[in-house]
Amino acid sequence: MDHDTAARTTLIRSASEAGSKVFATILTRSPISRIDIARHTGLSQAAVTKAVSPLVAAGLVDAPPVTQRDGLPGRPAAPVSIVPDAMVMLGIKINPDEVIAVATDLATNVLVSEQRALAAHDPETVADAVVDVITALEQELGDKAESIAGVGVAVSGDVDTSSGVVRASAIMGWTDVAFGAALQARLAWPVTLENDVHALTIGEHWFGVGLGTASFAIVTIGLGIGSGLHLNGQVVSGAYGVSGEIGHLPLAAPEHVCSCGRHGCVEAVASTSAIEAAVSAAHGREIGIDEAVRLAHAGDPAAEAAFREAARIIGTAIATLVNLAGPELVIIGGEGVSNFDLFEQTLRSAFEAHAFGAAARCPIVTRPHTFQDWARGAAAAAIQSLVR
Amino acid sequence: MDHDTAARTTLIRSASEAGSKVFATILTRSPISRIDIARHTGLSQAAVTKAVSPLVAAGLVDAPPVTQRDGLPGRPAAPVSIVPDAMVMLGIKINPDEVIAVATDLATNVLVSEQRALAAHDPETVADAVVDVITALEQELGDKAESIAGVGVAVSGDVDTSSGVVRASAIMGWTDVAFGAALQARLAWPVTLENDVHALTIGEHWFGVGLGTASFAIVTIGLGIGSGLHLNGQVVSGAYGVSGEIGHLPLAAPEHVCSCGRHGCVEAVASTSAIEAAVSAAHGREIGIDEAVRLAHAGDPAAEAAFREAARIIGTAIATLVNLAGPELVIIGGEGVSNFDLFEQTLRSAFEAHAFGAAARCPIVTRPHTFQDWARGAAAAAIQSLVR
Ligand SMILES: [Zn+2]
Ligand SMILES: [Zn+2]
Repeated sequence: MDHDTAARTTLIRSASEAGSKVFATILTRSPISRIDIARHTGLSQAAVTKAVSPLVAAGLVDAPPVTQRDGLPGRPAAPVSIVPDAMVMLGIKINPDEVIAVATDLATNVLVSEQRALAAHDPETVADAVVDVITALEQELGDKAESIAGVGVAVSGDVDTSSGVVRASAIMGWTDVAFGAALQARLAWPVTLENDVHALTIGEHWFGVGLGTASFAIVTIGLGIGSGLHLNGQVVSGAYGVSGEIGHLPLAAPEHVCSCGRHGCVEAVASTSAIEAAVSAAHGREIGIDEAVRLAHAGDPAAEAAFREAARIIGTAIATLVNLAGPELVIIGGEGVSNFDLFEQTLRSAFEAHAFGAAARCPIVTRPHTFQDWARGAAAAAIQSLVR
Repeated sequence: MDHDTAARTTLIRSASEAGSKVFATILTRSPISRIDIARHTGLSQAAVTKAVSPLVAAGLVDAPPVTQRDGLPGRPAAPVSIVPDAMVMLGIKINPDEVIAVATDLATNVLVSEQRALAAHDPETVADAVVDVITALEQELGDKAESIAGVGVAVSGDVDTSSGVVRASAIMGWTDVAFGAALQARLAWPVTLENDVHALTIGEHWFGVGLGTASFAIVTIGLGIGSGLHLNGQVVSGAYGVSGEIGHLPLAAPEHVCSCGRHGCVEAVASTSAIEAAVSAAHGREIGIDEAVRLAHAGDPAAEAAFREAARIIGTAIATLVNLAGPELVIIGGEGVSNFDLFEQTLRSAFEAHAFGAAARCPIVTRPHTFQDWARGAAAAAIQSLVR
């Protein structure tokens, strides 16, 4: 980390609450006038001006000379902007079979990206791969590697961000793994470990659809089924680090046993492996998801039934989420979106059957997040943890 | 409304965002120093001092002379306090068989209360009863009636607060009733219509358990089953006016048809009338809730089974809420709390079976809210709508 990056990091970390609010507002709404920052944060214009000055001096924020664009000093209307290049953030998404990594600027624009296949997914192997992929990113970044200010790591499951512990990840087969500390011991930058769907939600909140909506939910379908909630302008993290666990709502019949060990979870019927298992059982041989999709498209009754049942449970789960949390919009993402035609009709019917009253007005849209988008979410989580 | 009350109302309603924040902070955390107000709101001390002055001048806030208790003018550490008597608020809770009303001060301390039995619960009859009970409150208040600044009305169901329309209330048998407008036409003060559990949550948020916790959920059991969510320091209202509808989560078997018309709702198994229906069916005669409670306590298998099934579904619903929203604490209220011994063991087992990972740490406590507490919640909703 070069001197400028270190000084910027210190400035952001030691900012007052007002200073943090101002920086976060500029970060996500840039370009924005000081007047609009004051309006948005509820701070006085004097407080905003006071908070902006050191950010400009440190090269984090760009402000055109006030006198040139506005005649009244003290009431400057000229917009200020984030300097995206002022810092580089690394974002890592961990899957059971690969690690996807990006280096981004402060606006989570991807500068370079890398991925590594995983031969195994025990914590040591994965940590080695993360360090390896970061080394590769550093080389590609060249001089810019000196501007790296933090690393965000996103993994599926029950993740305690404050302690950096993966308490339980069924997909990775991990229980109580201090993965954050393991990485921190080997990396020179602050490491932020985050549940993957939360990271995606933070990314959408800071730099995506969240800017235009007061509230939204992201529901991811595929290998795992998860969700992230953004309500009253803030991401819902859960008092005990658990929230948005839509994949483990007890909406299926109890005879379906989930990979988490509980009975009747949504994932036990609607995850990729649950669909594979249902179609395999019906045909008496091992059938993967790609073949299951082909079979369903070809009209195979067992494959159609498996997708229909998964869609019914997912639609019911979305109605459950909407009845409780009342978001403005539900965004469906995840690998499952690529075959959304197999889910859509039944999913929407189930949602409509169980959405309560005006909650049924909540639109459900799909958005094909790539794995690189998930890694960007991890970078956004790292930026957010820096600002807090 | 006397001149002082009108002036205070105008001041609060026309406050800047900073002014509103400062007033809300003093209202709920009084006594509090200006320094702590600044810390809590993220405003500068100068902005806080500027916002406090007119509140003091209007008699809404009490501030001891700064020079006496603090040597440094401009950095005043002496606490300021709300003047509870500065305004009177009316809060009304509507039940199918009665109307409960309170007059409170600005800290929702009850000054006087009244109730009226309802011979019928069509909107006209209920509106007459509300006007009647308010007239009685006015008489009891005497001179203080001149300080009434608003009326909050709480009713079960899907309530659109912004338009004052009860879109659907199964318990009242109302659909699309413009009850807010009907009352507003007959009353001299601003009327705020709110879902009853939301109102209770606003009351707990502003003046109850919400002050000490960053997040909580209230779950009410009894005639209806509802919930209110308070996350990241704010009440979750729902983008379409619907949230916390835990009574209509599809967690029961589809053969159970709910009073709302949907299949498999929690209320269809766990509400008072669902328990009554199950016990009545088993015994081949009409059995009310009091007798059902007695039978269950006496070991009647059908009554025990009905409460057990209700408890199982409620515990599962609470796990669902906690897995999604991750509150710090769940408070169970409502009439059903008086027989919580019949629910507790099965409810906690079901919660533990379905709570995901660390979410199982969330404590579940009971709190016996009286109907008067619900009316206080309605008064709190009226205060909140004034400040916004
Ligand atoms: Zn599960
Ligand atoms: Zn229902």
